[in-house]
Amino acid sequence: MSEILKRLSLNQITLNRFTLKECVEACVRQNLGWIGPWRNKVADLGLAESARIIGDAGLRVSGLCRGGYFPAPTPATRRRQIDDNLRAIDEAATLGTDTLVLVCGPAPDRDIDAARGMVADGIAAIVDHARASRVKLAIEPLHPMFAADRSVICLVDEALELANRFDAADVGLTLDVFHIWWDPQIYRKIAACAGRIFAFHVSDWPVPLPGIFAARSMMGTGVIEIHRLRKAVEAAGYSGPIEVEIMNEALWAREADDVIQEMKQTFAEFV
Amino acid sequence: MSEILKRLSLNQITLNRFTLKECVEACVRQNLGWIGPWRNKVADLGLAESARIIGDAGLRVSGLCRGGYFPAPTPATRRRQIDDNLRAIDEAATLGTDTLVLVCGPAPDRDIDAARGMVADGIAAIVDHARASRVKLAIEPLHPMFAADRSVICLVDEALELANRFDAADVGLTLDVFHIWWDPQIYRKIAACAGRIFAFHVSDWPVPLPGIFAARSMMGTGVIEIHRLRKAVEAAGYSGPIEVEIMNEALWAREADDVIQEMKQTFAEFV
Repeated sequence: MSEILKRLSLNQITLNRFTLKECVEACVRQNLGWIGPWRNKVADLGLAESARIIGDAGLRVSGLCRGGYFPAPTPATRRRQIDDNLRAIDEAATLGTDTLVLVCGPAPDRDIDAARGMVADGIAAIVDHARASRVKLAIEPLHPMFAADRSVICLVDEALELANRFDAADVGLTLDVFHIWWDPQIYRKIAACAGRIFAFHVSDWPVPLPGIFAARSMMGTGVIEIHRLRKAVEAAGYSGPIEVEIMNEALWAREADDVIQEMKQTFAEFV
Repeated sequence: MSEILKRLSLNQITLNRFTLKECVEACVRQNLGWIGPWRNKVADLGLAESARIIGDAGLRVSGLCRGGYFPAPTPATRRRQIDDNLRAIDEAATLGTDTLVLVCGPAPDRDIDAARGMVADGIAAIVDHARASRVKLAIEPLHPMFAADRSVICLVDEALELANRFDAADVGLTLDVFHIWWDPQIYRKIAACAGRIFAFHVSDWPVPLPGIFAARSMMGTGVIEIHRLRKAVEAAGYSGPIEVEIMNEALWAREADDVIQEMKQTFAEFV
């Protein structure tokens, strides 16, 4: 296997209609080394059983998707979100990964600045538990098309500024090419993230987009300079697993082995 | 009529299924002072006839949509785009507006940096003709969701940096709340545009978005702090017409007078 393929991790949502068990079995058949599960799929199977089947299969867990969603309208609802993030940290630790991806969440009203403050407060409220659990928090700046419904944190420099309020061992970034490729300063911004990149995700941006949430496509079918971005992320010090995370209705209709085979081929060619 | 309603301009695409003549007649019935036509609708009616009916109705033209689309794969195709922009400048002058909105266009391949260079070259190739025609070029930074298919220029500061290569009397910006609201530095960036804001467009960002191109909604139905943005644009020196530009399938199905009445009411309340 080529060196780069050893870094390929299947992000669970790429095979969204399958259970975690089915995904693990497909990874084993296709000789992958890494998987990135989603919490809802882990919950379906049970946390202990999920950890067991992943471990028994010899897979490593690249990261857990996802914590975050900190902004909420009242102190009580914000507290509930923090409690959920504390549970997500525990789940990550049990699954044997040191990385929890944070999708920060939308604003509860029109005050996006206030919501950004709630994100900072939320991270501050969970960082001690994360450190004690040996889990790093990886803030994922999301594409601005998701600013109203998924993440008030959109830009790489904005996410870095937020991460910089905390220790570099505890809080860093998830960089996903789909979210960041268009930024005119992206290479300068990635370089500035040196030491804070905890996760790297790939997919492509097709034209036209087939949807909004389910918008992505297989590597090589869109406009993103994936290889150039991967090299930039490596130059900034990241050499860990690379998750393939593709939300796409047509892909979700296909068989697991078929998708993984195409993923391996396009990963080797375009990442 | 309140002072702010005197600044309301109907961007033609808000009434997309109607002819320019029908839009002009509806504006007159609803007592609007401004209209912002699109070139395809002007072409349908003929340029001279379009200028005549707008003038006879006593309407002023806030701006012409749109020039731009500079990047193209070969020198010959880039030349054709420049020629088209020269015609757009002539059309703007004939229609009696001093503002041509520039939607810069997508990259012809994966090299978005090169495409940005083609945009700068394109503007440089038309700016003398624009000045001679007393038409200002108003670069519109588009939301990053359109980076692959409509504009490689996405951020306000990026558009300003591009405009700053030219004289402030010739090249500036169109600011549209739909494209810029999510930027964490937007108020600082708008202030930095002082003297370069040539046009201001409003609409709203609904959750969930009903589409990608046809994504917008009537003011007050989404998450954008429209009034705060309008005040910021004014503080940066812009006191001209404010176009309501809404691409929305449900809105397009409605009657012209009905849409304009709702537009006036929500404009007075939320802009």
